[in-house]
Amino acid sequence: MALSNSPRPVAISMGDPAGIGPEIVVRAMLERPEIRSSCVVYGHDGVFDRACGVLGVRFADLFEADDHEGRCVPSTTGRVQLVSLRQSGAASLPVWGQVSAAAGHMAAQAIKAAAAACLHGHARALVTAPIHKEALAAAGEPFPGHTEMLQHLAALHAGIGIESVPVRMMLSCPGLRTVLMSIHVSLQEALAAITAENLRQTILLTQAHFSRQGVPGLRVAVAGVNPHAGEGGLFGRQELDVLGPVVASLQAEGVNVSGPHAPDTVFMRARQGEFDLVIAMYHDQGLIPVKLMGLEHGVNTTIGLPFLRTSPDHGTAFDLAGTGSASCESLLAALEQAMGQC
Amino acid sequence: MALSNSPRPVAISMGDPAGIGPEIVVRAMLERPEIRSSCVVYGHDGVFDRACGVLGVRFADLFEADDHEGRCVPSTTGRVQLVSLRQSGAASLPVWGQVSAAAGHMAAQAIKAAAAACLHGHARALVTAPIHKEALAAAGEPFPGHTEMLQHLAALHAGIGIESVPVRMMLSCPGLRTVLMSIHVSLQEALAAITAENLRQTILLTQAHFSRQGVPGLRVAVAGVNPHAGEGGLFGRQELDVLGPVVASLQAEGVNVSGPHAPDTVFMRARQGEFDLVIAMYHDQGLIPVKLMGLEHGVNTTIGLPFLRTSPDHGTAFDLAGTGSASCESLLAALEQAMGQC
Repeated sequence: MALSNSPRPVAISMGDPAGIGPEIVVRAMLERPEIRSSCVVYGHDGVFDRACGVLGVRFADLFEADDHEGRCVPSTTGRVQLVSLRQSGAASLPVWGQVSAAAGHMAAQAIKAAAAACLHGHARALVTAPIHKEALAAAGEPFPGHTEMLQHLAALHAGIGIESVPVRMMLSCPGLRTVLMSIHVSLQEALAAITAENLRQTILLTQAHFSRQGVPGLRVAVAGVNPHAGEGGLFGRQELDVLGPVVASLQAEGVNVSGPHAPDTVFMRARQGEFDLVIAMYHDQGLIPVKLMGLEHGVNTTIGLPFLRTSPDHGTAFDLAGTGSASCESLLAALEQAMGQC
Repeated sequence: MALSNSPRPVAISMGDPAGIGPEIVVRAMLERPEIRSSCVVYGHDGVFDRACGVLGVRFADLFEADDHEGRCVPSTTGRVQLVSLRQSGAASLPVWGQVSAAAGHMAAQAIKAAAAACLHGHARALVTAPIHKEALAAAGEPFPGHTEMLQHLAALHAGIGIESVPVRMMLSCPGLRTVLMSIHVSLQEALAAITAENLRQTILLTQAHFSRQGVPGLRVAVAGVNPHAGEGGLFGRQELDVLGPVVASLQAEGVNVSGPHAPDTVFMRARQGEFDLVIAMYHDQGLIPVKLMGLEHGVNTTIGLPFLRTSPDHGTAFDLAGTGSASCESLLAALEQAMGQC
């Protein structure tokens, strides 16, 4: 993994301490010692002490805890810097595989501290280990997931409303990238969200994201909504009434975009190299091909935030937590993207 | 390719003579001479004479034309039997790559003759080369595709209404099979077609199809409609109100079925071996993963007809017709399934 020359580190939030988050962070740092000096981990030292035990490494051999008074400064000793958060309430560690308010609170603390480092410019990107949405809710956090929490934190930091921080979810795996028009709503609501305004914003946010990453002019393909992209209006009209006009108007503005393409072949064509990225009309249209092609190496990226944020494309895997058997491949892929290797 | 002991041949309809159908039939017979004695081809000798020219083989070396007065009897001379249909109207051959009523008429003639052989029990299965829907319409055929035409012919033969011959489309490629709840309708209409009655019929038709093929008790997975299969009703209620109750009631009747499962991972899980087949809630939910995994080896099977019918999972490829470059892999996969190797 080639390292960027940027001196600012990537901030990593530990995820739910009852899940696999802490142990896959430890495993990633063991498997790729060369990235330790480019990362700062946010979490609780008790949690990481336990995770180190699971992987058979001494905490003090891997982590440098809080030698910089909570500042986001990477280690120079061959270990990885841990910004230790104060554990409030119960002193005992959350039980592996159990939803708890305490675990949700600790996970939220780590996200907030790591996001603050990004928002203040001390970290160049954020990589989030998986959280459990029920634990977050139990801790009183009003956000269904990372994306919404980060959107809120970014808006708060800038002193603007969250409607001024539009975000989209991108999923990628080797050979395929897709940005979703909507995420956690019913398919019926997703259909209602397929508007000209949404599509236009999604394409422009996507192009802006990649331009900032130094990859302008991405070949963006818009997937259709209906079978065969509507077959000229026979199987639905969104392609003729909504998608086609937006694509044409953006093309006239010089944006590299095409479509709407038949949904059943556009992902295959992207994988074969014809397009760099597919705009998916709804959650499963984009997620089915990405998960089929490479769950192990899937990365979730939030587009539209003032900083780059990636995460592994899997959950807390409560059934594996504490066993030391969880793979860190997806987390490593998320770290590579955050370090500019996307 | 191992051959079945059944003496009845597989009938092959040539497809649209302006497309790649005839030449991929010729190529398949050249690449796999051992299957010639198990097949009877339905089409026009002028069309196949031209297709042989494209592939550099003499017609008379490959085909035995009409030595049995149009009956469905395979060749015993190492060649393949062609049941030659009478070309009405214009004597010239359809131009490659052009939609025409004449080509649509010839394609329909071949389907009808080959289907009749199946319906009368002279052929054990039907494999259809691709047709062009506009040509079919130009020829005055009121069917959008093979499935509807075959459903009509089967109902006519049995003297019943087409509603008594419910059919479903199955797509399969190595490692994945999916049966679709609906096909060529808008996504909005597909949502309306997700009813308890439709799901129950789809699952039972699927199990009956495989039982007839000698594969009872298939592990059938029902995909959800909404992200995360509705997340307990948060993102839509079809899973709770429609899909779940049908699965539970069929399980109580001893049917091997599970779900509804999260759509974004159920195809991946099927590919990994957890399920034998996935019931897809709409066209693209099933076709995106199948096309991504193996367009070259994709096979389309019609479930519910009184005979087995398969076809390659691609179209007429008008741009390739006459070049001799089209692959016969998908057709060979369809022939293998028709011969009982599914």
